Amino acid sequence: MTDSLLLKPSIPRPSGRRDSQLRDVRITRHYTKHAEGSVLVEFGDTKVICTASIAERVPAFLSGREQGWLTAEYGMLPRATHTRSDREAARGKQTGRTQEIQRLIGRALRSVFDLNALGPRTLHIDCDVIQADGGTRTASITGAFVAAHDAATKLLASGRIAQSPVKDFVAAISVGIFDGSPVLDLDYEEDSQCDTDMNVVMTGAGGFVEVQGTAEGAPFSRDEMNALLDLADNGIKALIAKQKAALEIEGV
Amino acid sequence: MTDSLLLKPSIPRPSGRRDSQLRDVRITRHYTKHAEGSVLVEFGDTKVICTASIAERVPAFLSGREQGWLTAEYGMLPRATHTRSDREAARGKQTGRTQEIQRLIGRALRSVFDLNALGPRTLHIDCDVIQADGGTRTASITGAFVAAHDAATKLLASGRIAQSPVKDFVAAISVGIFDGSPVLDLDYEEDSQCDTDMNVVMTGAGGFVEVQGTAEGAPFSRDEMNALLDLADNGIKALIAKQKAALEIEGV
Amino acid sequence: MTDSLLLKPSIPRPSGRRDSQLRDVRITRHYTKHAEGSVLVEFGDTKVICTASIAERVPAFLSGREQGWLTAEYGMLPRATHTRSDREAARGKQTGRTQEIQRLIGRALRSVFDLNALGPRTLHIDCDVIQADGGTRTASITGAFVAAHDAATKLLASGRIAQSPVKDFVAAISVGIFDGSPVLDLDYEEDSQCDTDMNVVMTGAGGFVEVQGTAEGAPFSRDEMNALLDLADNGIKALIAKQKAALEIEGV
Amino acid sequence: MTDSLLLKPSIPRPSGRRDSQLRDVRITRHYTKHAEGSVLVEFGDTKVICTASIAERVPAFLSGREQGWLTAEYGMLPRATHTRSDREAARGKQTGRTQEIQRLIGRALRSVFDLNALGPRTLHIDCDVIQADGGTRTASITGAFVAAHDAATKLLASGRIAQSPVKDFVAAISVGIFDGSPVLDLDYEEDSQCDTDMNVVMTGAGGFVEVQGTAEGAPFSRDEMNALLDLADNGIKALIAKQKAALEIEGV
Amino acid sequence: MTDSLLLKPSIPRPSGRRDSQLRDVRITRHYTKHAEGSVLVEFGDTKVICTASIAERVPAFLSGREQGWLTAEYGMLPRATHTRSDREAARGKQTGRTQEIQRLIGRALRSVFDLNALGPRTLHIDCDVIQADGGTRTASITGAFVAAHDAATKLLASGRIAQSPVKDFVAAISVGIFDGSPVLDLDYEEDSQCDTDMNVVMTGAGGFVEVQGTAEGAPFSRDEMNALLDLADNGIKALIAKQKAALEIEGV
Amino acid sequence: MTDSLLLKPSIPRPSGRRDSQLRDVRITRHYTKHAEGSVLVEFGDTKVICTASIAERVPAFLSGREQGWLTAEYGMLPRATHTRSDREAARGKQTGRTQEIQRLIGRALRSVFDLNALGPRTLHIDCDVIQADGGTRTASITGAFVAAHDAATKLLASGRIAQSPVKDFVAAISVGIFDGSPVLDLDYEEDSQCDTDMNVVMTGAGGFVEVQGTAEGAPFSRDEMNALLDLADNGIKALIAKQKAALEIEGV
Repeated sequence: MTDSLLLKPSIPRPSGRRDSQLRDVRITRHYTKHAEGSVLVEFGDTKVICTASIAERVPAFLSGREQGWLTAEYGMLPRATHTRSDREAARGKQTGRTQEIQRLIGRALRSVFDLNALGPRTLHIDCDVIQADGGTRTASITGAFVAAHDAATKLLASGRIAQSPVKDFVAAISVGIFDGSPVLDLDYEEDSQCDTDMNVVMTGAGGFVEVQGTAEGAPFSRDEMNALLDLADNGIKALIAKQKAALEIEGV
Repeated sequence: MTDSLLLKPSIPRPSGRRDSQLRDVRITRHYTKHAEGSVLVEFGDTKVICTASIAERVPAFLSGREQGWLTAEYGMLPRATHTRSDREAARGKQTGRTQEIQRLIGRALRSVFDLNALGPRTLHIDCDVIQADGGTRTASITGAFVAAHDAATKLLASGRIAQSPVKDFVAAISVGIFDGSPVLDLDYEEDSQCDTDMNVVMTGAGGFVEVQGTAEGAPFSRDEMNALLDLADNGIKALIAKQKAALEIEGV
Repeated sequence: MTDSLLLKPSIPRPSGRRDSQLRDVRITRHYTKHAEGSVLVEFGDTKVICTASIAERVPAFLSGREQGWLTAEYGMLPRATHTRSDREAARGKQTGRTQEIQRLIGRALRSVFDLNALGPRTLHIDCDVIQADGGTRTASITGAFVAAHDAATKLLASGRIAQSPVKDFVAAISVGIFDGSPVLDLDYEEDSQCDTDMNVVMTGAGGFVEVQGTAEGAPFSRDEMNALLDLADNGIKALIAKQKAALEIEGV
Repeated sequence: MTDSLLLKPSIPRPSGRRDSQLRDVRITRHYTKHAEGSVLVEFGDTKVICTASIAERVPAFLSGREQGWLTAEYGMLPRATHTRSDREAARGKQTGRTQEIQRLIGRALRSVFDLNALGPRTLHIDCDVIQADGGTRTASITGAFVAAHDAATKLLASGRIAQSPVKDFVAAISVGIFDGSPVLDLDYEEDSQCDTDMNVVMTGAGGFVEVQGTAEGAPFSRDEMNALLDLADNGIKALIAKQKAALEIEGV
Repeated sequence: MTDSLLLKPSIPRPSGRRDSQLRDVRITRHYTKHAEGSVLVEFGDTKVICTASIAERVPAFLSGREQGWLTAEYGMLPRATHTRSDREAARGKQTGRTQEIQRLIGRALRSVFDLNALGPRTLHIDCDVIQADGGTRTASITGAFVAAHDAATKLLASGRIAQSPVKDFVAAISVGIFDGSPVLDLDYEEDSQCDTDMNVVMTGAGGFVEVQGTAEGAPFSRDEMNALLDLADNGIKALIAKQKAALEIEGV
Repeated sequence: MTDSLLLKPSIPRPSGRRDSQLRDVRITRHYTKHAEGSVLVEFGDTKVICTASIAERVPAFLSGREQGWLTAEYGMLPRATHTRSDREAARGKQTGRTQEIQRLIGRALRSVFDLNALGPRTLHIDCDVIQADGGTRTASITGAFVAAHDAATKLLASGRIAQSPVKDFVAAISVGIFDGSPVLDLDYEEDSQCDTDMNVVMTGAGGFVEVQGTAEGAPFSRDEMNALLDLADNGIKALIAKQKAALEIEGV
């Protein structure tokens, strides 16, 4: 860590949390009754319903192959946010932000799913934000993994697949530079005051799946990047522990 | 009631409820934190988040007048239903069913709102179904009224309006003919087995705002219609009592 | 009927018609030359071209079954109305009102068509308003039935089906409360002055297919509803007589 | 004319008409009641409703100037043709053919309208084909001129403009090479058998506004082009006489 | 030529060219590396990339027949023009002008292609304007022919077809009336000052494929039309010579 | 660097380049004539036209403030790639990939532009790929900076702004893990064989603006990430030298 980072007297985060402290994270399985996997994930006041739905067909580009597919969609209720935003279905198209997030969720989940083991079917992930307070994409990935795991378990239990397609855990967290200090798991107020915002997706084995860092104000240095990645690494470990705890409730 | 209705030995409803029995109805206020009014309404397994958002502007057709507007939008999470349906935002348009329902919700709420008393602002109602088991439109109207009432109370408390725009209560319920008997508050399984489905919207004063009856199988008779309206009348009274109880929790 | 209804001195309708009087209704068959059924229906100054087109295929959700389908679309020429409205094809989408009406027309016609007898083909109903003066949806249903009947007769005559899919007649009429009195068949001026507007669809056997009543001003009472249904019942009988007369011209 | 054209024994046109013979042309004014100008134009079995609507505003690109605008839209009822085509409003976009035709109609009419004399308002032309049998764009232009003339007369009579914006008459006709012979005013069957199809728009003074010739089969020669233009010239003169006769009915 | 045309003292064209003089025309083959045919065509400062792509499938309306298809699309980079225009992909639809031009390019190319000889495959023509200075549609047709010729040669060389589908050359040029004089190959400045603009498409054998003349100001006379066609005829001959020269570079 | 990285015998890159070697990079200014800045940037066979256009207006969300805006759009010619892709303008919407890239370009450029110094105007960046061979987004950012710089210089020279809004240089490069070795500036073939793909955007001062790393196959380690960032850092320095050389041609 650079001198400037070490010597700077830290002012408290708006949330009052320690720099390396996650918000309260809750993962509630079986949240709605129809989906093969259904999870309410909460990162503090950020609340996302994540469902995993199995469809016995594959997209056209995979037809005739034995491989399956996993795809994700993301949405926000219009008043999940401070001021109401337009309903995307009424506007007739998804924003660039929505598309970017749902592509990210899909890539993150596919990194730990064996699509051959899934067989010729599609796992549809839906992440719908019912209340937003920063970090909706990281909460979505973290909750969607649990929903997808439940759906895979159902496939296995029903004998439709012979082995689980789940290769590893995956979770995501945000980090940023707040008033010169690297901090973990930004809420909305912190996010809007950060110069740098980074989303990190990692597996249970500790490998990186995605690193997306953006300087919203001043560019960030290599030292700052290293400090952010250290924080993220610890945060992901804590999230994966939460996922394991949630899944062990039923002895999985 | 006609002889045929009186003499027929009734077979039990799939839900096991009595013909005139509502599902468990729960109305939870302050469900999400950003909206001026936010309600989770549950009619049994049907669960809808209803928010009311205030915007300090009016649509173009009202510009220059002192009157306000109230408008509603409706959506379903893709996996609110037994099988996943396409996300309307991804398809790029709302279905005819969605548009029909959101127009109905808007008309129902406007019937008890004094748009002049609201002043030059718009009350946006959003009804988003997170779990569907029949009756999503009637639950939406019933819950949206409570959310809109809370938003109106906030406007009044903040001094932005001088008197409440709420003229009366409004609620909605479905009725249908199941196996020859009129029954109240259809769940999904019952709805799909009914010959006739009718949605009724009524005010606290007992007036009709909307009556929408559709013969999905055999046409229905005038006697059947009368029996259905009797059932609906009682159901609406019970729902309005629930709305009052929910609103009185905070002494409103 | 309630006392208030009985005692009120009635002021004349804008149209000068008696409360229970239909406008002049004309049904002209073979109006255009290509369609299997083609009708110009006129309810006074409201004029709608209704065509029925046979397609030897069914929608995807019916593929592999022997059943047919009947679907309806509705449109208005941009200057069918007092002021020109946007062309829906140019705007790139149909309004909610359009979708609601075409869904209603489809349901009404399907209620008297035996889709199994139709065989694996689709009957496309198109209702295009060339001049609007209130009641376009009721005129559309009433005219579309005659066009669909003609198309069915052609199918039968050509030997493509063994028995007629037409089970009964169907027609529709509007009723409303004008200045406190229930009146039949609202024209545009009357419609815009009515507190309540109700559209009723009934079969030749006298059963209800649809009842859609909306309080546009004050809510309506049960007594008012009964008076409206009485009026509608008589209006429908007259319309079905007109349909029979039109169809008997060729001895059907 | 080339030798080949002169010597070829002519086979009869499918319509039985002489090569230089128009179909029966009828122009019915005041066809619908709301529009400032409303015409039913018939070229044989081709029937188009042409309306002219006045709007007291101009498009954004003309704002702040005193000039007016004239624009045209074109549509076909789905079953105006032999087989039903998709409704453009339902598909959500207009075809390239539709856009090409409505741009042509607009240019043709603007060529004889003084947009300065029109003042800061827009004349909307709508041409809706209710029955198609070839030549819908030429019938549209010919009928739309009469509708636009009526709208201009109303503006003048009401004192909103000081002088007529109509500078000249304009009409349009198709010509083609059928079995080697140039023929006038193609109906659908002839059009589909022609090698060359040309649409010609001319003014009352005899000037060309548009010439659009397309070789659908073999390319056409300069001699053939000259023969086609001769035919068109005579056809246009006859159409303008029809327009004058229609407009003189009321002494215009 | 009429007297008025002959006697008028000619003022110089803005470009300084003689009335019958083309701009510098350059045709660069193999401009990009992936397409089966790729040409940069320049008419002075107008620059268009024309590619021809072979796809081993046909549109649905040709399925099951042995015939191929040729279709064209046209686009402009947003800042190909003096002021930036909206990107069509971002607006979500192509303008009427774009659709009209791409339909013209497709018809022009199909007039010299034997679609039976092409076999069951599609030749996709893409014309993308990277710099516009008038005449983009004529440059597109002229360049696209060379690209399509190269693609056909590749198909032949690879043995996928037995004989060339190319029946003749085709090129296009604009002509107009500038200050009373017919002039060839209008650049942007000249085009915006011309009363009449005509685009002519002709084959190597001298036949007309398309003639599209539009009076943007005053209507044009038969004599003017003849003078324009004479000019176009000479211009096309020069363009086809350029096409031949470009193709002979590799001995084709 | 980890042992596994050090000990692995490296197999040659498909391009034959050294691991730390850029492709030939060429930056051609004034490529098209209308735009305020116009650059052709080439990274080997990847060729992108980047234009910067000045508009004297700002988006609605900035109206009434003195600040300017910079926004970017990205597109690909349909046959820029190995197989033709659908034209986005014809499909009616941009893909998620396109939207993600154009959002990235905009953020990257805004990081070095002082939007207050730009004044109340918008700088529109358009990046259009005419030939793709990997790295189109990094080439776009690198070229767009030069185009934007030229546009800013024109604003300054014309006196419309008092000081340059350009605060620093910015460029972008891709890095990846090919067969276990970190390599710089992936072409298409290399990109499709890499496990990890990272795009890095940096300023002239050496700060990070964006780091976007994605594991397309196996997750990547912290050591691999460090090796990739080292490579990128050197690549960016070389690109910024190229930008300076290009801009110094005119003594800027």
